Amino acid sequence: MTGSGTTSYRRLGVAERRAQLIATALRLFAHRVPEDVSLDDVAAAAKVSRPLVYRYFPGGKQQLYEAALRSAADELELCFAEPETGPLTGRLAAVLDRYLAFVDEHDAGFAALLQGGSVAETSRTGAIVDEVRRAAVAQILKHLSVAEPGVRLRTMVRTWITAVEAASLIWLDEGKQPPLGELRDWLVDHFVALLLTTGAGDPQVAAVARAALAREPADGPVGDLARRVLPLLEDAGHLL
Amino acid sequence: MTGSGTTSYRRLGVAERRAQLIATALRLFAHRVPEDVSLDDVAAAAKVSRPLVYRYFPGGKQQLYEAALRSAADELELCFAEPETGPLTGRLAAVLDRYLAFVDEHDAGFAALLQGGSVAETSRTGAIVDEVRRAAVAQILKHLSVAEPGVRLRTMVRTWITAVEAASLIWLDEGKQPPLGELRDWLVDHFVALLLTTGAGDPQVAAVARAALAREPADGPVGDLARRVLPLLEDAGHLL
Repeated sequence: MTGSGTTSYRRLGVAERRAQLIATALRLFAHRVPEDVSLDDVAAAAKVSRPLVYRYFPGGKQQLYEAALRSAADELELCFAEPETGPLTGRLAAVLDRYLAFVDEHDAGFAALLQGGSVAETSRTGAIVDEVRRAAVAQILKHLSVAEPGVRLRTMVRTWITAVEAASLIWLDEGKQPPLGELRDWLVDHFVALLLTTGAGDPQVAAVARAALAREPADGPVGDLARRVLPLLEDAGHLL
Repeated sequence: MTGSGTTSYRRLGVAERRAQLIATALRLFAHRVPEDVSLDDVAAAAKVSRPLVYRYFPGGKQQLYEAALRSAADELELCFAEPETGPLTGRLAAVLDRYLAFVDEHDAGFAALLQGGSVAETSRTGAIVDEVRRAAVAQILKHLSVAEPGVRLRTMVRTWITAVEAASLIWLDEGKQPPLGELRDWLVDHFVALLLTTGAGDPQVAAVARAALAREPADGPVGDLARRVLPLLEDAGHLL
Protein backbone atom coordinates (compact mmCIF):
# COMPACT_ATOMS: atom_id res chain seq x y z
CA MET A 1 0.00 0.00 0.00
CA THR A 2 2.73 2.43 1.02
CA GLY A 3 4.66 1.39 -2.08
CA SER A 4 1.84 2.12 -4.48
CA GLY A 5 1.15 5.33 -2.53
CA THR A 6 4.71 6.51 -3.11
CA THR A 7 4.51 5.64 -6.79
CA SER A 8 1.22 7.47 -7.09
CA TYR A 9 2.74 10.44 -5.23
CA ARG A 10 5.52 10.71 -7.83
CA ARG A 11 3.08 10.69 -10.69
CA LEU A 12 0.90 13.65 -9.65
CA GLY A 13 1.93 17.32 -9.50
CA VAL A 14 1.30 19.38 -6.36
CA ALA A 15 -1.92 20.98 -7.59
CA GLU A 16 -3.30 17.70 -8.89
CA ARG A 17 -2.42 15.86 -5.70
CA ARG A 18 -4.08 18.54 -3.59
CA ALA A 19 -7.19 18.42 -5.77
CA GLN A 20 -7.24 14.62 -5.56
CA LEU A 21 -7.04 14.65 -1.75
CA ILE A 22 -9.80 17.27 -1.55
CA ALA A 23 -12.04 15.31 -3.92
CA THR A 24 -11.42 12.13 -1.91
CA ALA A 25 -12.20 13.92 1.35
CA LEU A 26 -15.35 15.44 -0.13
CA ARG A 27 -16.52 11.98 -1.18
CA LEU A 28 -15.95 10.63 2.34
CA PHE A 29 -17.51 13.68 4.05
CA ALA A 30 -20.53 13.28 1.76
CA HIS A 31 -21.55 9.96 3.24
CA ARG A 32 -20.35 10.24 6.82
CA VAL A 33 -20.38 13.11 9.33
CA PRO A 34 -16.97 14.78 9.71
CA GLU A 35 -16.53 13.17 13.15
CA ASP A 36 -16.50 9.72 11.54
CA VAL A 37 -13.89 10.46 8.88
CA SER A 38 -10.22 10.13 9.89
CA LEU A 39 -7.13 11.21 7.98
CA ASP A 40 -6.28 7.50 7.76
CA ASP A 41 -9.57 6.97 5.90
CA VAL A 42 -8.70 9.77 3.49
CA ALA A 43 -5.17 8.41 2.97
CA ALA A 44 -6.51 4.88 2.36
CA ALA A 45 -9.23 6.06 -0.04
CA ALA A 46 -6.72 8.18 -1.98
CA LYS A 47 -4.21 5.29 -1.89
CA VAL A 48 -1.48 7.47 -0.35
CA SER A 49 0.34 7.49 2.98
CA ARG A 50 -0.91 9.39 6.02
CA PRO A 51 2.28 11.57 6.14
CA LEU A 52 1.58 12.62 2.56
CA VAL A 53 -1.88 13.86 3.55
CA TYR A 54 -0.28 15.78 6.43
CA ARG A 55 2.31 17.28 4.09
CA TYR A 56 -0.50 18.83 2.02
CA PHE A 57 -2.70 19.63 5.01
CA PRO A 58 -0.43 20.27 8.01
CA GLY A 59 -3.49 21.52 9.94
CA GLY A 60 -4.85 17.97 9.79
CA LYS A 61 -8.49 17.03 9.39
CA GLN A 62 -9.83 20.49 10.18
CA GLN A 63 -7.77 22.04 7.37
CA LEU A 64 -8.74 19.30 4.94
CA TYR A 65 -12.41 19.69 5.93
CA GLU A 66 -12.27 23.44 5.30
CA ALA A 67 -10.56 22.91 1.94
CA ALA A 68 -13.22 20.35 0.98
CA LEU A 69 -15.95 22.77 2.08
CA ARG A 70 -14.31 25.60 0.09
CA SER A 71 -14.29 23.34 -2.97
CA ALA A 72 -17.95 22.34 -2.42
CA ALA A 73 -18.90 26.02 -2.01
CA ASP A 74 -17.20 26.89 -5.31
CA GLU A 75 -19.06 24.03 -6.99
CA LEU A 76 -22.37 25.24 -5.50
CA GLU A 77 -21.78 28.81 -6.63
CA LEU A 78 -21.20 27.52 -10.17
CA CYS A 79 -24.64 25.82 -9.94
CA PHE A 80 -26.23 29.22 -9.45
CA ALA A 81 -25.00 30.70 -12.75
CA GLU A 82 -27.84 30.73 -15.27
CA PRO A 83 -28.35 32.78 -18.46
CA GLU A 84 -30.77 35.69 -18.01
CA THR A 85 -33.12 34.57 -20.75
CA GLY A 86 -36.58 33.02 -20.80
CA PRO A 87 -39.26 32.92 -18.10
CA LEU A 88 -38.08 33.25 -14.49
CA THR A 89 -39.58 29.92 -13.42
CA GLY A 90 -37.51 28.09 -16.05
CA ARG A 91 -34.33 29.69 -14.75
CA LEU A 92 -35.21 28.87 -11.14
CA ALA A 93 -36.00 25.27 -12.10
CA ALA A 94 -32.65 24.87 -13.90
CA VAL A 95 -30.69 26.24 -10.92
CA LEU A 96 -32.70 24.14 -8.45
CA ASP A 97 -32.06 21.00 -10.52
CA ARG A 98 -28.31 21.54 -10.22
CA TYR A 99 -28.52 22.50 -6.54
CA LEU A 100 -30.69 19.51 -5.60
CA ALA A 101 -28.40 17.14 -7.51
CA PHE A 102 -25.58 18.50 -5.34
CA VAL A 103 -27.64 17.90 -2.16
CA ASP A 104 -28.49 14.38 -3.34
CA GLU A 105 -24.82 13.62 -3.97
CA HIS A 106 -23.37 15.12 -0.78
CA ASP A 107 -26.20 14.15 1.55
CA ALA A 108 -24.72 13.33 4.96
CA GLY A 109 -21.96 15.94 4.69
CA PHE A 110 -24.40 18.59 3.49
CA ALA A 111 -26.75 17.88 6.39
CA ALA A 112 -23.95 17.77 8.99
CA LEU A 113 -22.60 21.10 7.85
CA LEU A 114 -25.89 22.99 7.72
CA GLN A 115 -27.43 21.47 10.81
CA GLY A 116 -24.51 22.59 12.92
CA GLY A 117 -23.21 21.02 16.07
CA SER A 118 -20.42 19.29 14.12
CA VAL A 119 -17.02 19.44 15.78
CA ALA A 120 -15.59 20.51 12.42
CA GLU A 121 -17.75 23.63 12.42
CA THR A 122 -15.99 26.92 13.12
CA SER A 123 -16.53 30.59 12.38
CA ARG A 124 -14.54 29.98 9.16
CA THR A 125 -16.80 27.18 7.94
CA GLY A 126 -19.81 29.31 8.95
CA ALA A 127 -18.43 32.18 6.86
CA ILE A 128 -18.12 29.91 3.79
CA VAL A 129 -21.75 28.78 4.17
CA ASP A 130 -22.90 32.40 4.57
CA GLU A 131 -20.96 33.34 1.44
CA VAL A 132 -22.84 30.68 -0.56
CA ARG A 133 -26.16 32.03 0.75
CA ARG A 134 -25.19 35.59 -0.19
CA ALA A 135 -24.16 34.44 -3.67
CA ALA A 136 -27.56 32.73 -4.08
CA VAL A 137 -29.42 35.89 -3.01
CA ALA A 138 -27.32 38.04 -5.36
CA GLN A 139 -28.07 35.71 -8.28
CA ILE A 140 -31.83 35.84 -7.68
CA LEU A 141 -31.78 39.65 -7.48
CA LYS A 142 -29.83 39.75 -10.75
CA HIS A 143 -32.48 37.58 -12.42
CA LEU A 144 -35.19 39.87 -11.02
CA SER A 145 -33.25 42.82 -12.59
CA VAL A 146 -33.22 44.68 -9.29
CA ALA A 147 -30.13 46.70 -8.46
CA GLU A 148 -31.32 48.27 -5.21
CA PRO A 149 -33.66 45.90 -3.39
CA GLY A 150 -35.70 47.32 -0.52
CA VAL A 151 -36.02 45.56 2.81
CA ARG A 152 -39.17 43.60 1.83
CA LEU A 153 -37.65 42.23 -1.38
CA ARG A 154 -34.38 41.41 0.40
CA THR A 155 -36.26 39.68 3.22
CA MET A 156 -38.37 37.75 0.74
CA VAL A 157 -35.43 36.47 -1.31
CA ARG A 158 -33.32 35.68 1.76
CA THR A 159 -36.24 33.84 3.38
CA TRP A 160 -36.87 31.78 0.24
CA ILE A 161 -33.17 30.85 -0.02
CA THR A 162 -33.29 29.61 3.57
CA ALA A 163 -36.54 27.78 2.84
CA VAL A 164 -34.84 26.00 -0.09
CA GLU A 165 -31.97 25.03 2.18
CA ALA A 166 -34.37 23.85 4.90
CA ALA A 167 -36.50 21.92 2.41
CA SER A 168 -33.34 20.14 1.17
CA LEU A 169 -32.46 19.07 4.71
CA ILE A 170 -36.05 18.01 5.37
CA TRP A 171 -35.99 16.05 2.09
CA LEU A 172 -32.88 14.18 3.28
CA ASP A 173 -34.48 13.64 6.69
CA GLU A 174 -37.67 12.31 5.03
CA GLY A 175 -35.67 9.61 3.22
CA LYS A 176 -35.45 11.67 0.00
CA GLN A 177 -39.22 12.03 -0.37
CA PRO A 178 -41.06 13.44 -2.32
CA PRO A 179 -39.24 12.71 -5.65
CA LEU A 180 -36.65 15.34 -6.55
CA GLY A 181 -38.58 16.71 -9.57
CA GLU A 182 -41.63 17.27 -7.39
CA LEU A 183 -39.55 19.02 -4.73
CA ARG A 184 -38.08 21.28 -7.42
CA ASP A 185 -41.50 22.20 -8.82
CA TRP A 186 -42.82 22.86 -5.30
CA LEU A 187 -39.89 25.18 -4.56
CA VAL A 188 -40.52 27.10 -7.80
CA ASP A 189 -44.24 27.37 -6.89
CA HIS A 190 -43.18 28.51 -3.41
CA PHE A 191 -41.13 31.32 -4.99
CA VAL A 192 -44.02 32.44 -7.20
CA ALA A 193 -46.44 32.36 -4.24
CA LEU A 194 -44.05 34.34 -2.08
CA LEU A 195 -43.43 36.87 -4.86
CA LEU A 196 -47.19 37.51 -5.24
CA THR A 197 -47.80 37.56 -1.49
CA THR A 198 -44.96 39.99 -0.86
CA GLY A 199 -45.90 42.05 -3.93
CA ALA A 200 -49.36 42.44 -2.39
CA GLY A 201 -47.79 44.75 0.21
CA ASP A 202 -44.80 46.35 -1.49
CA PRO A 203 -44.64 48.41 -4.72
CA GLN A 204 -41.11 47.30 -5.67
CA VAL A 205 -41.97 43.62 -5.31
CA ALA A 206 -45.30 44.22 -7.09
CA ALA A 207 -43.42 45.61 -10.12
CA VAL A 208 -41.04 42.66 -10.11
CA ALA A 209 -43.97 40.23 -9.86
CA ARG A 210 -45.86 41.86 -12.77
CA ALA A 211 -42.76 41.81 -14.96
CA ALA A 212 -42.08 38.17 -14.13
CA LEU A 213 -45.66 37.03 -14.74
CA ALA A 214 -45.80 38.84 -18.07
CA ARG A 215 -42.96 36.63 -19.34
CA GLU A 216 -44.50 33.33 -18.18
CA PRO A 217 -46.17 31.18 -20.87
CA ALA A 218 -49.75 29.96 -20.29
CA ASP A 219 -48.61 26.34 -20.43
CA GLY A 220 -45.75 26.98 -17.99
CA PRO A 221 -45.54 26.36 -14.24
CA VAL A 222 -47.35 29.57 -13.21
CA GLY A 223 -50.37 28.94 -15.45
CA ASP A 224 -50.38 25.36 -14.20
CA LEU A 225 -50.20 26.51 -10.57
CA ALA A 226 -53.04 28.99 -11.11
CA ARG A 227 -55.24 26.28 -12.64
CA ARG A 228 -54.53 23.94 -9.73
CA VAL A 229 -55.07 26.58 -7.01
CA LEU A 230 -58.39 27.91 -8.36
CA PRO A 231 -60.43 24.77 -7.44
CA LEU A 232 -59.29 25.20 -3.82
CA LEU A 233 -60.95 28.62 -3.83
CA GLU A 234 -64.31 27.25 -5.08
CA ASP A 235 -65.88 27.17 -1.63
CA ALA A 236 -64.15 30.39 -0.59
CA GLY A 237 -66.11 32.79 -2.80
CA HIS A 238 -66.95 34.83 0.31
CA LEU A 239 -63.29 35.90 0.46
CA LEU A 240 -63.16 37.54 -2.97
CA MET B 1 -20.75 43.89 47.03
CA THR B 2 -19.76 40.50 48.48
CA GLY B 3 -21.55 41.53 51.66
CA SER B 4 -24.82 42.33 49.96
CA GLY B 5 -24.37 39.20 47.81
CA THR B 6 -24.08 37.04 50.93
CA THR B 7 -27.16 38.69 52.45
CA SER B 8 -29.07 38.14 49.22
CA TYR B 9 -27.86 34.50 49.16
CA ARG B 10 -29.32 33.89 52.63
CA ARG B 11 -32.66 35.28 51.65
CA LEU B 12 -33.41 33.03 48.62
CA GLY B 13 -34.17 29.30 48.65
CA VAL B 14 -32.29 26.91 46.34
CA ALA B 15 -34.92 26.82 43.59
CA GLU B 16 -35.41 30.58 43.66
CA ARG B 17 -31.67 31.23 43.57
CA ARG B 18 -31.24 28.86 40.64
CA ALA B 19 -34.10 30.54 38.79
CA GLN B 20 -32.65 33.98 39.54
CA LEU B 21 -29.22 33.00 38.18
CA ILE B 22 -30.78 31.53 35.05
CA ALA B 23 -32.91 34.62 34.48
CA THR B 24 -29.86 36.84 34.94
CA ALA B 25 -27.83 34.72 32.53
CA LEU B 26 -30.64 34.77 29.98
CA ARG B 27 -30.75 38.57 30.17
CA LEU B 28 -27.00 38.80 29.58
CA PHE B 29 -27.01 36.17 26.79
CA ALA B 30 -29.85 38.10 25.14
CA HIS B 31 -27.71 41.13 24.42
CA ARG B 32 -24.26 39.62 23.98
CA VAL B 33 -23.02 36.48 22.28
CA PRO B 34 -22.20 33.66 24.75
CA GLU B 35 -18.47 34.19 24.13
CA ASP B 36 -18.70 37.69 25.61
CA VAL B 37 -20.49 36.73 28.82
CA SER B 38 -18.34 35.52 31.74
CA LEU B 39 -19.44 33.91 34.99
CA ASP B 40 -18.10 37.05 36.68
CA ASP B 41 -20.59 39.10 34.65
CA VAL B 42 -23.42 36.81 35.74
CA ALA B 43 -22.31 36.96 39.38
CA ALA B 44 -22.05 40.76 39.26
CA ALA B 45 -25.43 41.18 37.55
CA ALA B 46 -27.09 38.82 40.06
CA LYS B 47 -25.24 40.57 42.90
CA VAL B 48 -23.75 37.31 44.20
CA SER B 49 -20.23 35.91 44.45
CA ARG B 50 -18.59 33.88 41.70
CA PRO B 51 -18.24 30.79 43.96
CA LEU B 52 -21.99 30.90 44.55
CA VAL B 53 -22.62 30.72 40.79
CA TYR B 54 -20.23 27.76 40.60
CA ARG B 55 -22.01 26.06 43.50
CA TYR B 56 -25.25 26.08 41.49
CA PHE B 57 -23.58 25.42 38.13
CA PRO B 58 -20.43 23.36 38.80
CA GLY B 59 -20.11 22.83 35.04
CA GLY B 60 -19.44 26.56 34.71
CA LYS B 61 -20.62 28.76 31.87
CA GLN B 62 -21.53 25.90 29.55
CA GLN B 63 -23.90 24.43 32.14
CA LEU B 64 -25.41 27.82 32.91
CA TYR B 65 -25.81 28.50 29.18
CA GLU B 66 -27.60 25.20 28.66
CA ALA B 67 -29.88 25.85 31.65
CA ALA B 68 -30.67 29.31 30.28
CA LEU B 69 -31.38 27.82 26.86
CA ARG B 70 -33.60 25.13 28.44
CA SER B 71 -35.53 27.89 30.21
CA ALA B 72 -35.84 29.93 26.99
CA ALA B 73 -37.03 26.82 25.12
CA ASP B 74 -39.73 26.21 27.75
CA GLU B 75 -40.80 29.85 27.44
CA LEU B 76 -40.93 29.55 23.64
CA GLU B 77 -42.98 26.35 23.77
CA LEU B 78 -45.48 28.15 26.01
CA CYS B 79 -45.77 30.83 23.28
CA PHE B 80 -47.01 28.16 20.88
CA ALA B 81 -50.04 27.16 22.95
CA GLU B 82 -53.18 28.69 21.45
CA PRO B 83 -56.86 27.74 21.79
CA GLU B 84 -58.21 25.83 18.79
CA THR B 85 -61.00 28.27 18.08
CA GLY B 86 -61.60 30.89 15.40
CA PRO B 87 -60.00 31.28 11.95
CA LEU B 88 -56.55 29.74 11.47
CA THR B 89 -54.92 33.03 10.48
CA GLY B 90 -55.99 34.59 13.80
CA ARG B 91 -54.38 31.75 15.73
CA LEU B 92 -51.17 31.96 13.69
CA ALA B 93 -51.03 35.73 14.21
CA ALA B 94 -51.45 35.34 17.99
CA VAL B 95 -48.67 32.75 18.22
CA LEU B 96 -46.39 34.77 15.93
CA ASP B 97 -46.95 37.89 18.07
CA ARG B 98 -45.68 36.05 21.13
CA TYR B 99 -42.83 34.39 19.24
CA LEU B 100 -41.65 37.63 17.63
CA ALA B 101 -41.81 39.45 20.99
CA PHE B 102 -39.48 36.73 22.29
CA VAL B 103 -37.10 37.25 19.34
CA ASP B 104 -37.20 41.02 19.88
CA GLU B 105 -36.35 40.60 23.56
CA HIS B 106 -33.59 37.99 23.21
CA ASP B 107 -32.08 39.32 20.00
CA ALA B 108 -28.31 38.75 20.14
CA GLY B 109 -28.59 35.50 22.07
CA PHE B 110 -31.32 34.21 19.77
CA ALA B 111 -29.24 34.99 16.69
CA ALA B 112 -26.03 33.53 18.16
CA LEU B 113 -27.78 30.30 19.04
CA LEU B 114 -29.55 29.75 15.73
CA GLN B 115 -26.77 30.96 13.46
CA GLY B 116 -24.37 28.43 14.94
CA GLY B 117 -20.63 28.69 15.22
CA SER B 118 -20.89 29.74 18.86
CA VAL B 119 -18.41 28.06 21.18
CA ALA B 120 -21.32 27.37 23.54
CA GLU B 121 -23.06 25.26 20.91
CA THR B 122 -23.02 21.49 21.44
CA SER B 123 -25.11 18.51 20.39
CA ARG B 124 -27.14 19.12 23.60
CA THR B 125 -27.96 22.74 22.72
CA GLY B 126 -28.73 21.60 19.16
CA ALA B 127 -31.14 19.00 20.56
CA ILE B 128 -32.97 21.68 22.59
CA VAL B 129 -33.39 23.87 19.49
CA ASP B 130 -34.63 20.87 17.47
CA GLU B 131 -37.12 20.06 20.22
CA VAL B 132 -38.57 23.59 19.98
CA ARG B 133 -38.90 23.21 16.19
CA ARG B 134 -40.64 19.87 16.60
CA ALA B 135 -43.02 21.36 19.17
CA ALA B 136 -43.87 24.17 16.74
CA VAL B 137 -44.57 21.70 13.93
CA ALA B 138 -46.75 19.56 16.23
CA GLN B 139 -48.78 22.63 17.28
CA ILE B 140 -49.45 23.65 13.68
CA LEU B 141 -50.55 20.12 12.75
CA LYS B 142 -52.89 20.12 15.78
CA HIS B 143 -54.45 23.39 14.61
CA LEU B 144 -54.84 21.92 11.12
CA SER B 145 -56.63 18.93 12.78
CA VAL B 146 -54.33 16.46 11.05
CA ALA B 147 -53.33 13.35 12.99
CA GLU B 148 -51.36 11.59 10.25
CA PRO B 149 -49.66 14.14 8.01
CA GLY B 150 -48.25 12.87 4.72
CA VAL B 151 -44.79 13.82 3.50
CA ARG B 152 -45.97 16.90 1.55
CA LEU B 153 -47.87 18.37 4.50
CA ARG B 154 -44.98 17.60 6.88
CA THR B 155 -42.48 19.14 4.49
CA MET B 156 -44.69 22.21 4.06
CA VAL B 157 -45.13 22.84 7.79
CA ARG B 158 -41.48 22.13 8.60
CA THR B 159 -40.33 24.42 5.79
CA TRP B 160 -42.61 27.24 6.97
CA ILE B 161 -41.37 26.87 10.57
CA THR B 162 -37.79 27.22 9.31
CA ALA B 163 -38.82 30.17 7.15
CA VAL B 164 -40.27 31.88 10.24
CA GLU B 165 -37.03 31.26 12.09
CA ALA B 166 -34.97 32.53 9.15
CA ALA B 167 -37.18 35.59 8.72
CA SER B 168 -36.68 36.41 12.42
CA LEU B 169 -32.91 36.25 12.03
CA ILE B 170 -33.07 38.30 8.83
CA TRP B 171 -35.30 40.81 10.66
CA LEU B 172 -32.63 41.18 13.37
CA ASP B 173 -29.92 41.45 10.71
CA GLU B 174 -31.93 44.12 8.85
CA GLY B 175 -31.99 46.31 11.98
CA LYS B 176 -35.48 45.11 12.99
CA GLN B 177 -37.10 46.17 9.71
CA PRO B 178 -39.89 45.97 8.55
CA PRO B 179 -42.01 46.79 11.66
CA LEU B 180 -42.90 43.71 13.72
CA GLY B 181 -46.64 43.82 12.90
CA GLU B 182 -45.86 43.85 9.18
CA LEU B 183 -43.46 40.94 9.54
CA ARG B 184 -46.16 38.98 11.42
CA ASP B 185 -48.78 39.65 8.73
CA TRP B 186 -46.30 38.69 6.00
CA LEU B 187 -45.52 35.39 7.76
CA VAL B 188 -49.26 34.62 8.05
CA ASP B 189 -49.70 35.44 4.33
CA HIS B 190 -46.69 33.23 3.61
CA PHE B 191 -48.40 30.34 5.40
CA VAL B 192 -51.65 30.82 3.47
CA ALA B 193 -49.75 31.04 0.15
CA LEU B 194 -47.76 27.91 0.96
CA LEU B 195 -50.91 26.03 2.02
CA LEU B 196 -52.64 26.84 -1.29
CA THR B 197 -49.53 26.13 -3.35
CA THR B 198 -48.92 22.79 -1.65
CA GLY B 199 -52.64 21.96 -1.74
CA ALA B 200 -52.50 22.45 -5.51
CA GLY B 201 -50.49 19.21 -5.70
CA ASP B 202 -51.61 17.10 -2.73
CA PRO B 203 -55.14 15.91 -1.77
CA GLN B 204 -54.50 15.94 2.00
CA VAL B 205 -53.18 19.50 1.94
CA ALA B 206 -56.01 20.51 -0.43
CA ALA B 207 -58.58 19.30 2.13
CA VAL B 208 -56.81 21.18 4.92
CA ALA B 209 -56.67 24.33 2.78
CA ARG B 210 -60.39 24.18 1.90
CA ALA B 211 -61.36 23.66 5.54
CA ALA B 212 -59.14 26.54 6.67
CA LEU B 213 -60.41 28.96 3.99
CA ALA B 214 -64.04 28.14 4.80
CA ARG B 215 -63.52 29.47 8.32
CA GLU B 216 -61.83 32.73 7.27
CA PRO B 217 -63.98 35.89 7.36
CA ALA B 218 -64.18 38.10 4.25
CA ASP B 219 -62.70 41.03 6.15
CA GLY B 220 -59.88 38.89 7.56
CA PRO B 221 -56.27 38.50 6.37
CA VAL B 222 -57.03 35.97 3.60
CA GLY B 223 -59.73 38.11 1.99
CA ASP B 224 -57.41 41.07 2.31
CA LEU B 225 -54.52 39.13 0.74
CA ALA B 226 -56.75 37.97 -2.14
CA ARG B 227 -57.85 41.56 -2.85
CA ARG B 228 -54.24 42.75 -2.84
CA VAL B 229 -52.92 39.91 -5.03
CA LEU B 230 -55.63 40.17 -7.73
CA PRO B 231 -54.36 43.50 -9.18
CA LEU B 232 -50.95 41.88 -9.73
CA LEU B 233 -52.65 39.35 -11.99
CA GLU B 234 -54.33 42.04 -14.14
CA ASP B 235 -51.73 41.84 -16.90
CA ALA B 236 -51.39 38.08 -16.53
CA GLY B 237 -54.78 37.08 -17.95
CA HIS B 238 -52.99 34.81 -20.42
CA LEU B 239 -52.08 32.53 -17.49
CA LEU B 240 -55.64 31.81 -16.37
